[in-house]
Amino acid sequence: MTLVLDALPGVPEIRPGDDLAALLAGRLELGPSDVLAVAHKVVSKAEGRVRSLADVEPGDRAHALAAEHGKDPRHVQVILDESVELVRADRGRLICRTRHGFVCANAGVDRSNTGEADAVLLPEHPDASAAALRDALGVGAVVITDSWGRPWRQGQVEVAIGCAGLAPVVDLRSAADRDGRALAATVIAIADEVAAAADLVRGKASGEPAVRVRGLANYLIEGTSGGAAALVRPPEDDLFR
Amino acid sequence: MTLVLDALPGVPEIRPGDDLAALLAGRLELGPSDVLAVAHKVVSKAEGRVRSLADVEPGDRAHALAAEHGKDPRHVQVILDESVELVRADRGRLICRTRHGFVCANAGVDRSNTGEADAVLLPEHPDASAAALRDALGVGAVVITDSWGRPWRQGQVEVAIGCAGLAPVVDLRSAADRDGRALAATVIAIADEVAAAADLVRGKASGEPAVRVRGLANYLIEGTSGGAAALVRPPEDDLFR
Repeated sequence: MTLVLDALPGVPEIRPGDDLAALLAGRLELGPSDVLAVAHKVVSKAEGRVRSLADVEPGDRAHALAAEHGKDPRHVQVILDESVELVRADRGRLICRTRHGFVCANAGVDRSNTGEADAVLLPEHPDASAAALRDALGVGAVVITDSWGRPWRQGQVEVAIGCAGLAPVVDLRSAADRDGRALAATVIAIADEVAAAADLVRGKASGEPAVRVRGLANYLIEGTSGGAAALVRPPEDDLFR
Repeated sequence: MTLVLDALPGVPEIRPGDDLAALLAGRLELGPSDVLAVAHKVVSKAEGRVRSLADVEPGDRAHALAAEHGKDPRHVQVILDESVELVRADRGRLICRTRHGFVCANAGVDRSNTGEADAVLLPEHPDASAAALRDALGVGAVVITDSWGRPWRQGQVEVAIGCAGLAPVVDLRSAADRDGRALAATVIAIADEVAAAADLVRGKASGEPAVRVRGLANYLIEGTSGGAAALVRPPEDDLFR
């Protein structure tokens, strides 16, 4: 099996209301066995999931957190608006659980590369966004990605926050290893690994938000099952609340 | 930029004392701009980092933890021997800090696919193991990998536990984004993304422990700087002890 990844060239700056699929189409050949990994920022922008900080009225909690952590209170208010839980607030970092169930810094609210808008939010329904892009582009699967930090590890890796057409996780626990012993705890987060792989072929600041991945036909699935929601560990199963 | 990944075919079962580089060589063309991702298990086996549970005498703490978490006390003793700290013990899961500083389940001690030995440990000095393999194979870089679970996320992803010749992290904070605003918190864990990408092209039970990655020349570095040790977040900087 060979995996081949190419960034789509020449994608322009995306603005609210843009037809993202139309702006991604035609830049590389795309077919029904291809997977397209798309940075969430262009999806969010096209869907109008942006806010201007000038329009944000921070509340008391945002003011208090901002003062404590050296942040812009309007930015903190936007983060709180996107969160259902503040998992940790420490040393300038706000680790939040978003309404999707994702646990990530700043609830995924991003202030870089945002053009006119000051803050880019995560898509509201990223699995649905992925499905719509997949259908519009005629590819086998779409993975929508974001860059996250990790506990205990330096650096960020790209992860899947939306997914359609690709098995988000593959459970190998029913397979036996080569000695006939069951593989212990071998559920692979395929969609996260695709997101990470795609990140290697594009420059963060170079305007290459989409990457075509060839060679993953084994992991394509029909219909709407799965989605990156399957990557969210239920809080009651988590050791690090 | 194009990234191309291929698994090395036909690698035999590795046994303690084997010359791993000799057994990996010649299966695919390998050159000085190639990166080779190698599952740690074959490195550990070749280095004799295996233990037979029949020879393990569990101590009191191992017996207590094993009883509480439904584990084999000899397995728990091996895990404790590899750990400097038990970060969490909950619901059958032992999350440990290894002597390398890695925080992972069971201190990386693996019981699947182990052949005659019952337990495979992590390499003692995985960055040195990576450097030795790189030199022996004449590739640009070697990344040694393991499969880890994550807090808050379902499924495991492959991460880098050893690295030579590749920038383990790339700091983009000095770059400006396209609006001229500094990119916030953009340190990319390149070696972890390479590990994840490589995992997509090999079957866990199919005996494909090594993957050639082409297209990463931008991230190759000379000398011995870096290493996966750079991926360990200092405990004092961590929000989730």
